[in-house]
Amino acid sequence: MQILPPILLFVFALTVAHAADPLPSWNDGSTKEALIGFIEDAQTEGSDGYIPPAERIAVFDNDGTLWSEQPMYFQLLFAIDRLKALAEEDPTLAATEPFRAVLEADRETLRTYGMKEIGEIIMRTHAGLTEEQFAGVVRDWIEQARHPQTGMRYTDMTFQPMKELLEALRNAGFKTYIVSGGGLSFMRPWVEDVYGIPPVQVVGSRVKVEYRVTEDGPALVRLPELDLVDDKVGKPVGIYQVIGRRPVFAAGNSDGDFQMLEYTTSGPEPRFGLLVHHTDGEREYAYDRDSHIGRLERGLDEAEDRGWQIVDMARDWATVYGNEN
Amino acid sequence: MQILPPILLFVFALTVAHAADPLPSWNDGSTKEALIGFIEDAQTEGSDGYIPPAERIAVFDNDGTLWSEQPMYFQLLFAIDRLKALAEEDPTLAATEPFRAVLEADRETLRTYGMKEIGEIIMRTHAGLTEEQFAGVVRDWIEQARHPQTGMRYTDMTFQPMKELLEALRNAGFKTYIVSGGGLSFMRPWVEDVYGIPPVQVVGSRVKVEYRVTEDGPALVRLPELDLVDDKVGKPVGIYQVIGRRPVFAAGNSDGDFQMLEYTTSGPEPRFGLLVHHTDGEREYAYDRDSHIGRLERGLDEAEDRGWQIVDMARDWATVYGNEN
Repeated sequence: MQILPPILLFVFALTVAHAADPLPSWNDGSTKEALIGFIEDAQTEGSDGYIPPAERIAVFDNDGTLWSEQPMYFQLLFAIDRLKALAEEDPTLAATEPFRAVLEADRETLRTYGMKEIGEIIMRTHAGLTEEQFAGVVRDWIEQARHPQTGMRYTDMTFQPMKELLEALRNAGFKTYIVSGGGLSFMRPWVEDVYGIPPVQVVGSRVKVEYRVTEDGPALVRLPELDLVDDKVGKPVGIYQVIGRRPVFAAGNSDGDFQMLEYTTSGPEPRFGLLVHHTDGEREYAYDRDSHIGRLERGLDEAEDRGWQIVDMARDWATVYGNEN
Repeated sequence: MQILPPILLFVFALTVAHAADPLPSWNDGSTKEALIGFIEDAQTEGSDGYIPPAERIAVFDNDGTLWSEQPMYFQLLFAIDRLKALAEEDPTLAATEPFRAVLEADRETLRTYGMKEIGEIIMRTHAGLTEEQFAGVVRDWIEQARHPQTGMRYTDMTFQPMKELLEALRNAGFKTYIVSGGGLSFMRPWVEDVYGIPPVQVVGSRVKVEYRVTEDGPALVRLPELDLVDDKVGKPVGIYQVIGRRPVFAAGNSDGDFQMLEYTTSGPEPRFGLLVHHTDGEREYAYDRDSHIGRLERGLDEAEDRGWQIVDMARDWATVYGNEN
């Protein structure tokens, strides 16, 4: 019997660490197997699935893919909380539609409101401040606010299995990006702590900003006007503007992610498209074709033909938020 | 006398390598001293000039800062070459203004043309293709084209001292970005080879793109419409969209860079603003206040008050392109 020198023991320990399950919150099955196979092959020179390091770009939707999005987008809940705060400073808001109806939770009137009114609420609550001021408002809210149904912090309603997937991809040399219909400036302040994704790797919807020399010095002031809607066909456009390279891995959960997955998986192999299917009404929410939020129809119909993997949340995830038991 | 064990010799060798001049093409003087001091302090914990790694963001203008820009922006020379190529496929171009005047080098008529006509030429030569096709056109041109006055490749007309500065910043943990009025898609295909800056770290002017499922598959098609003019007040806006963090180091050469330097250097110290002053009519070009291209007036007037360093190209640079002698 040979005694291993310390350096070999060290290498051996590294190998064992490498062999540990990188996705412990995923139940065994074809989805987990496909993910692990893709990630391993991507790093294996000579493998058909090898991906040169510079091309290892993975994009993730946020709402419904990395965290929950029911009973409405969390950013809309932020907007409502912010509207309440603004109404304390400016009482005229409570007398002006569509703000009054929201502030008074006037369901009768709210039922008649649509995208136009939501747009007005978003603009009123998201514009006017400098980028740095707005980041502070978001940070405070993320710290304090609680979800109306679970009572949890919003950042605790992020999906543990997806966070493991992000980490496993990064360990394999992938750069992980968020590409979300949510607001760029709403996500940047907290995604690094929560997902390990730095603010510079966020693509999102955004308002126009204007450079001004303010009383507090030069700053970017947020205007009440949309500049990019990073949803549907807007997602590949956002990828062009910020990343400039076709990703090889894309994860989403709704038809708003369809074009991002289509664009990603239409390049030369290897490619990976992943759709999170919300099938778990017990631990999270169950919805798909008929949902107003995160509607998933075309994705379900075409996933098989396109070779996209579907996550059946109830079946594939051992935990949703990582807090069960 | 003690004999050093091999590991210490190795560490010693590293130290010597570290102490070598990181900016060999810069002549000794206050500019070089300030740059080296800033870079060393940024990495030195406990120093007043220490900068946490995540904040080490350095932005560089391209035209006139990293490469030459006379007798006109190189991208305009690209547009003219491309117009000639397009005219071979489509003879009607030669009969249509403003293209005819350019193709025939009709100086009389060209003298009457301004921004409107330049815009038409840029749009005609930069739109219509997919992003991937356009990148191919740019790559071919960069490979083959020669500067009308020097006969050099355009990528050989990049400034050796600035490339050393980029490298020195990166060695100190900075992320280096281009933030240029030039076209995003015109720069992305070659900047990594030439400057060591990956395509994802380029901010530039851009046209609108549209996601379409074309005959060749899903692609981003370039439209003849501007989306961002990344110049003057547009530079901090581009930084917001793509980087999302106020840089700590900015280098430019014209008043088109003024707001970028102002924005960068108005954050809490340490900060560095650098302006390349084209003073070398022998090795490069000499121009500033009266130039139509790369006009530098406000920058010269305010640099001292704002604490910005000015590079006197003739005095500070031992070589311009790195090819002398």
